[in-house]
Amino acid sequence: MSEKAAVLVAGSWGTALASVLADKDMDVAVWTRNEAQRDEINGLHRNERYLPGVELSPNLYATTDMEEAVSGAKAVVIVAPSSAVREVTRALKPFWHEDMLVVHATKGFETETMKRISTVIGEELGCEEGRIVVLSGPSHAEEVVKRCPTTVVVASMDDTQSAAAQDLFMNSYFRVYTNRDMVGAELAGALKNIIALGAGMSDGLGYGDNAKAALLTRGLAEITRIGVEMGANPLTFAGLAGIGDLVVTATSRHSRNWRAGFMLGEGKTLDEVLGSMGMVVEGIRTTKAAHTISEKYKVQMPIAGQLYHVLFEGLDPRTAVEALMGRDRKTEMEMMSLETWEQWHT
Amino acid sequence: MSEKAAVLVAGSWGTALASVLADKDMDVAVWTRNEAQRDEINGLHRNERYLPGVELSPNLYATTDMEEAVSGAKAVVIVAPSSAVREVTRALKPFWHEDMLVVHATKGFETETMKRISTVIGEELGCEEGRIVVLSGPSHAEEVVKRCPTTVVVASMDDTQSAAAQDLFMNSYFRVYTNRDMVGAELAGALKNIIALGAGMSDGLGYGDNAKAALLTRGLAEITRIGVEMGANPLTFAGLAGIGDLVVTATSRHSRNWRAGFMLGEGKTLDEVLGSMGMVVEGIRTTKAAHTISEKYKVQMPIAGQLYHVLFEGLDPRTAVEALMGRDRKTEMEMMSLETWEQWHT
Repeated sequence: MSEKAAVLVAGSWGTALASVLADKDMDVAVWTRNEAQRDEINGLHRNERYLPGVELSPNLYATTDMEEAVSGAKAVVIVAPSSAVREVTRALKPFWHEDMLVVHATKGFETETMKRISTVIGEELGCEEGRIVVLSGPSHAEEVVKRCPTTVVVASMDDTQSAAAQDLFMNSYFRVYTNRDMVGAELAGALKNIIALGAGMSDGLGYGDNAKAALLTRGLAEITRIGVEMGANPLTFAGLAGIGDLVVTATSRHSRNWRAGFMLGEGKTLDEVLGSMGMVVEGIRTTKAAHTISEKYKVQMPIAGQLYHVLFEGLDPRTAVEALMGRDRKTEMEMMSLETWEQWHT
Repeated sequence: MSEKAAVLVAGSWGTALASVLADKDMDVAVWTRNEAQRDEINGLHRNERYLPGVELSPNLYATTDMEEAVSGAKAVVIVAPSSAVREVTRALKPFWHEDMLVVHATKGFETETMKRISTVIGEELGCEEGRIVVLSGPSHAEEVVKRCPTTVVVASMDDTQSAAAQDLFMNSYFRVYTNRDMVGAELAGALKNIIALGAGMSDGLGYGDNAKAALLTRGLAEITRIGVEMGANPLTFAGLAGIGDLVVTATSRHSRNWRAGFMLGEGKTLDEVLGSMGMVVEGIRTTKAAHTISEKYKVQMPIAGQLYHVLFEGLDPRTAVEALMGRDRKTEMEMMSLETWEQWHT
């Protein structure tokens, strides 16, 4: 009998990760609250809203019953929107037990509390957050379901758990590396969406590749700085969950965060952008979280700050991006505020 | 009377930098050996082969006479192909004097000697290489001549010289930051072309954005590692001349290095690629240089190594890129060989 895994819920990334597991001949149960989506997955092997045109593996089936989804599974993969993770984990709790591997691939924070996703999951399951595994890295769902070569990192404070997650997902097109810096992987994955929004905005304003590259450079320094302040290893930001994911999110039209930024740059309002996306744009919520975090840790986040003004206070995107070009600074190390990073090392 | 600057020679990047100076109301003499190009620039204000469709400033004029180009200039900007820098500098020498600022923007090595470009220029001018200024960063010539916002770094061991270069170029769309790590800026600018070639090859093979992002992540770690070994500050690789330039070179169709890699990935031979480009592809020469450097410093450069096999030993690009996906490594820090970087810091 095949091994079983459960994936919660059936968005584009959840469905893509479920497909990776199904390709390893596992039985994969995808849990969703949406009955029409369940029937579409089970009857047509499709999930058109999230992965248009893709035929799903017959090893993958959907259910709205959490007990049915989770019972007998050796691993559960949580890929809910950040705003739903607590509720989904609470629904999982009665059917979860200590020897079930928990992986999450949600990139964001719980907005109300500013907590990392692994903290939320740990609280709800009543387990150490250090045993939870974060899966992150440059990985468009659209490419993963086409079996394009993809490389991700699984990070946990518990080597046994990250090794189990590596074994779970690794296949010929999906390569999985381990990392012990769970906090860094989680923060990099969440915070990079802010920079991708900004890059999209710059593109929407027609500023070009040179300007976007400068913004990405500065953005990576910015999210590394706050990440280090929150306990991450800066090298994680130089890895797959940092630079890798930032590049893929900020330079590809597949990316929802980039697209939302692009529309804002073109002059659309936040309501118009959200109305036309039809899916969650994590970078928008994360910008709100970063604004609070930046004040709490007293670390400047100029890009997140300007985006906050655009998203929630009506600042003109052009004014914001021009402010970010930073005419007032003179040396590169100042521009990137890299002294902090250097100090951390020495 | 306007101040004067000289630019050697009239390729796309040289002409773009000359345009930046002309926009500051300087008299800009561009030196070229090509009489037809000289006449085109002076008569039509065009340089069609290198910057098609662009109308050049009337402040910019061309000459084939080095004395005429350089005499009275406060600054000389060397932007020759790496293979021509020594010869061009030798031609400059009789007309150069100590209070003339020297900036170079050539990204490569002298292939025969593996010397950095500033070393070559210093030898030929008979001056300290530390006073030469390296200009680098994410800057497609095609966008600079359209006055798209662009951010670059000028690096010199001599703060007076880098400050003078900053004053020379800085304008409303061309923002210039200083950095003291001349060696790092020079190495990052040269070595990133190798990774851009590799990224193009991955795209030519149809591997997708996920694979390319993984390659860029690993590539940045690789060039940082060898850069540090050669005396650079790793933070420069996290800045405009490193990540910034790598992103713009590896993700944009403007880039010759990316395009050359793309054609190789599609199955074209090196001769076919070179024949169709019509311009120098620095990354190809740099790959040869890196192969030698890697052996000299005993530092592994897996991406440069695989590209060397493809370019000069007929290895199939698919085999090369698959080897680079690195199935044999297990932790992210191993994959990126980041320990070396960490050790450098502590």
